[in-house]
Amino acid sequence: MINITLPDGSVKAFNIGSTPMDVAKSISEGLARNVISANFNGTTIETSTKLTTDGSLVLYTWNDDEGKKAFWHSSAHVLAQALEELYPGCKLTIGPAIDNGFYYDVDFGENVVSDKDFKSIENKMLEIARGKHNFNMRTVSKSDALSLYKDNRYKTELIKNLEDGEITFCDHSTFTDLCRGGHIPNTGIIKAVKILSVAGAYWRGDENNPQLTRVYGISFPKQKDLKEYLELLEEAKKRDHRKLGKELGLFAFSQKVGQGLPLWLPKGAALRERLENFLKAAQKKAGYEMVVTPHIGQKELYVTSGHYAKYGEDSFQPITTPKEDEEFLLKPMNCPHHCEIYNNTQWSYKDLPKRYAEFGTVYRYEQSGELHGLTRVRGFTQDDAHIFCTPDQLDQEFKNVIDLVLYVFGSLGFENFTAQVSLRDPEKPEKYIGSDENWEKAEKAILNATKEKNLNYIIETGEAAFYGPKLDFMVKDALGRQWQLGTIQVDYNLPERFDLTYKGSDNESHRPVMIHRAPFGSLERFIAILLEHTGGNFPLWLMPTQVSVLTLSEKYENYGQNVLTLLENHEIRALIDNRSETIGKKIREAEMNKTPYMIIIGEQEEKENKISVRQHGGEDLGTISVDEFAEIIKKEINKTKKQF
Amino acid sequence: MINITLPDGSVKAFNIGSTPMDVAKSISEGLARNVISANFNGTTIETSTKLTTDGSLVLYTWNDDEGKKAFWHSSAHVLAQALEELYPGCKLTIGPAIDNGFYYDVDFGENVVSDKDFKSIENKMLEIARGKHNFNMRTVSKSDALSLYKDNRYKTELIKNLEDGEITFCDHSTFTDLCRGGHIPNTGIIKAVKILSVAGAYWRGDENNPQLTRVYGISFPKQKDLKEYLELLEEAKKRDHRKLGKELGLFAFSQKVGQGLPLWLPKGAALRERLENFLKAAQKKAGYEMVVTPHIGQKELYVTSGHYAKYGEDSFQPITTPKEDEEFLLKPMNCPHHCEIYNNTQWSYKDLPKRYAEFGTVYRYEQSGELHGLTRVRGFTQDDAHIFCTPDQLDQEFKNVIDLVLYVFGSLGFENFTAQVSLRDPEKPEKYIGSDENWEKAEKAILNATKEKNLNYIIETGEAAFYGPKLDFMVKDALGRQWQLGTIQVDYNLPERFDLTYKGSDNESHRPVMIHRAPFGSLERFIAILLEHTGGNFPLWLMPTQVSVLTLSEKYENYGQNVLTLLENHEIRALIDNRSETIGKKIREAEMNKTPYMIIIGEQEEKENKISVRQHGGEDLGTISVDEFAEIIKKEINKTKKQF
Repeated sequence: MINITLPDGSVKAFNIGSTPMDVAKSISEGLARNVISANFNGTTIETSTKLTTDGSLVLYTWNDDEGKKAFWHSSAHVLAQALEELYPGCKLTIGPAIDNGFYYDVDFGENVVSDKDFKSIENKMLEIARGKHNFNMRTVSKSDALSLYKDNRYKTELIKNLEDGEITFCDHSTFTDLCRGGHIPNTGIIKAVKILSVAGAYWRGDENNPQLTRVYGISFPKQKDLKEYLELLEEAKKRDHRKLGKELGLFAFSQKVGQGLPLWLPKGAALRERLENFLKAAQKKAGYEMVVTPHIGQKELYVTSGHYAKYGEDSFQPITTPKEDEEFLLKPMNCPHHCEIYNNTQWSYKDLPKRYAEFGTVYRYEQSGELHGLTRVRGFTQDDAHIFCTPDQLDQEFKNVIDLVLYVFGSLGFENFTAQVSLRDPEKPEKYIGSDENWEKAEKAILNATKEKNLNYIIETGEAAFYGPKLDFMVKDALGRQWQLGTIQVDYNLPERFDLTYKGSDNESHRPVMIHRAPFGSLERFIAILLEHTGGNFPLWLMPTQVSVLTLSEKYENYGQNVLTLLENHEIRALIDNRSETIGKKIREAEMNKTPYMIIIGEQEEKENKISVRQHGGEDLGTISVDEFAEIIKKEINKTKKQF
Repeated sequence: MINITLPDGSVKAFNIGSTPMDVAKSISEGLARNVISANFNGTTIETSTKLTTDGSLVLYTWNDDEGKKAFWHSSAHVLAQALEELYPGCKLTIGPAIDNGFYYDVDFGENVVSDKDFKSIENKMLEIARGKHNFNMRTVSKSDALSLYKDNRYKTELIKNLEDGEITFCDHSTFTDLCRGGHIPNTGIIKAVKILSVAGAYWRGDENNPQLTRVYGISFPKQKDLKEYLELLEEAKKRDHRKLGKELGLFAFSQKVGQGLPLWLPKGAALRERLENFLKAAQKKAGYEMVVTPHIGQKELYVTSGHYAKYGEDSFQPITTPKEDEEFLLKPMNCPHHCEIYNNTQWSYKDLPKRYAEFGTVYRYEQSGELHGLTRVRGFTQDDAHIFCTPDQLDQEFKNVIDLVLYVFGSLGFENFTAQVSLRDPEKPEKYIGSDENWEKAEKAILNATKEKNLNYIIETGEAAFYGPKLDFMVKDALGRQWQLGTIQVDYNLPERFDLTYKGSDNESHRPVMIHRAPFGSLERFIAILLEHTGGNFPLWLMPTQVSVLTLSEKYENYGQNVLTLLENHEIRALIDNRSETIGKKIREAEMNKTPYMIIIGEQEEKENKISVRQHGGEDLGTISVDEFAEIIKKEINKTKKQF
């Protein structure tokens, strides 16, 4: 008998040679129907793998990330078989599972595979799947493996690079592939398949190698899951912030200025400013002070802070000057500058906490292939602040910051989030700067605050920044995608490196603690996510244009201007469209610009001294007075923008 | 006889050998008493120089810059004579007139000259001056000149570097010096002398050469002028923006961040923001749109704009990246970025003008020796904007910009200014980019607007920027010093280089005209000048703290807080000082912080529900209600902040 420990800590005895499927069956028939993969003592195995020693077993279903991985890894095998059958002589290379589905890189020789062929590949895959073939792992010698692939230079290269010894293969149906394992019980549970796209990809990512065809696909255990996925994909495409950013005239990129360096167009700059003002007002109430610091600093500054040792060589290179022996760096972070501001004055404990805030634009090198719209850029503006406080103040300050972050998320419609507490990996102390004692203090402060604020949280050991532990907010958007937004980090390290001090009540010199925090993270990334979350329909208080006044004809311009003035007196942001265009065209354009409310002005409205109101999306709010309308607006704003 | 043309265009005949002094006497006795230097056909001459040909003559008095230059140049001769008499064997080198006075660089050998010796130098100079010695120019051969200075390696070096031929010397009293000319009639008009300082200076500014002693002095034709100058110097010292900036906690520098890179402390950042908001509001009314652009751009961008060819090698050097063949530059100007924003859309003539504004921080390398507080820095924020318009719109746009600049100056208390129109040097067309035709159009537009707005203006030929003519505002501050503030520049060049177009009413593609403008110039420089102009007593609307509520003791905190809330309801920026310090100390600190109004709260005030008001500088406004006080504040703000 062997003892199997399950995730809930319970231990059960099984016969030697029992499989994860046997374990599942011993728990429930339902679980046995759904289990698709397993992990034994840290290694991914099949549900049919025979267990021969004591150990810990985790069973995965479709609802687990690991389950999906096995599902898509197995689907890649089915895809490969389908391609071999449809394109005899094609050479397979590698085909992993990815975050959403799987791909296979294939050398099709003379053949060209395009979207016209997707249907036949899907049909062939489903045909194979219906055969309910088991996946069977087997080991072969390296020389046998090489002879099996003697006509495939890619697999040959892969095998040659493997360590000597036995090589594992996986068989299913008539198909065999070089494989490390981790499959679903049989192909039959693959019920829905979609080939998504093809793209060129160099063998091993090296442009000097032959170009292969990468075939992307996704598969599901139910037809309904595929349908939902494709709808989400369609919606995500519509909400792509790069597309919306262009349509709404928010930002642009210029090849001449440089990739990854956004230019904020007037409407986008106004949006940024509104977000900045929103946060500034809350920060003012919370006792922050704004500062302004340069976008460069001497290399020495970052040597002091430790950033140079950590990032220097992989980042934008130093700036020299023509006549002096100086080296500057584009600032990758604002903290060293804020430390120098703190250091400009000798503080007493009575002066603390000092809370320095700056919308500080920082620059970090990213390879061009990594750049993506506003979510991965080379220059971005952090809604940065650094709090310098006494150790006694740390707990309270940390809680205050959490309150601020919750206010920001609440006012911007992000209701669904998890707090991720990143602690250091206690087994790799060499990765981190600072003393054990300081790390323990800091980690405790974060965990205390997280618990007291009743946050839904997870702990990620080993994910801390090199200079301290942190709390990140992982936000789910309207399409269910998860984004990292907002960060709060405790730092005992920079105060040491910059020799920051304050005079205590004991008249002695003490070291302050530092908190880094950015509720948005960066304006660029936040606006990208907000665009995709809302599809451009921001909360009313944030919309650059809240109301468009559309005249039925130019005759009503005077009345329209009067209405505009009344709206402005109510502090409603409005504009007038008095062009000689049809009202239909004016409405269409206002809809396209996501304008929340359209006011239509014609003869009737002028005569009655009223306005006709249409909401974005088409709802007619009828003909009312400007004051009544202002009440509606005010109510909606109060509903969305939280109190701080 | 010779014909002498005077500056008013009149021509008079004089005997050959007449002197400028003879010409002065022929005009008036008063002029003859005051004339101290002259210029004949473009060359500076003495008033005793014999005129032997027809030509144009300008006579200078103390009130002309050229007159002062001759006065101080001659005073340097007197200083040199005094030093030779007081320190026999000292070696003279060079001694020019400067903007305020003159200096002489001297090798004193073993002697040390310090401020203890200033009085005796001044007395010796005045003694020489009283001798009413004439300055007489004479020419000698190069070999004679060299033998005259055989014991002075410095003068020998200077003479050797002169072209062969006759060398000019100037004699007065017993003293002789190598000299190009331009003296006052005699030493007797030097009535007041002050030695200001001594400093080390390397021979020819090269640190490998011997160090000399630079003796700075100033002289005047009246004792009263010296007294006024010294008072002004004293006041300027008190108002030095570097000193005030520190006292008021506005900004700081850090050696670690780098010289010339200001850190804006909370109070300074608030001041900047207030200035920005002030201009933003006016710009919004004037139809500007804010944009945001990165602080770097590809080198190629500045090659396109022409900035790289002009500044590249003398500026901050390019930033490379570790993995790609890219080069970026810190942006020295915002215009290329704004051109790329313009280029992001295809515009019609109906869309123009586009007015893009940005508080854009730019970086320009300055040698460390040139850096000075906030007036000469390496990174600064321009209140920049670029107007893209049709040629027809240029005149009107230029006038609108002048209106905006006048609003800014008016609201900030700069009432005394001259518009300086900088045109190109028509004889050096190679210095400028762009066609003759475009230059003529642009220069005409500026001159038209200047005249129509009734500006007090001067024309500076040859002072245009390389890309276009410009209008600069030269502002006199409270101490009578002149500063260049605010610039408006027409540019036909960048639209060509960036191939900017718009579709005209003829449906053809046309080239827009561009206007660069910055009313402040830069926030850094403007704040420096505003500090020195006002001594830190900014217009009330701009003061970060307008009112300090000072409690007589901590007993009155509650009432003080109530007063604070009432003030805030009136949108008055106030703070409370409720420390357990004496009221005297609280008042002293509020005075030192230049707080315009202090409200004193004690038992009497609380009982009567009133406040006692004291103005900065000491005036007592009595005991009044908060509402009455708010009216006073409102009136003062309306008086200073202009309407736009």
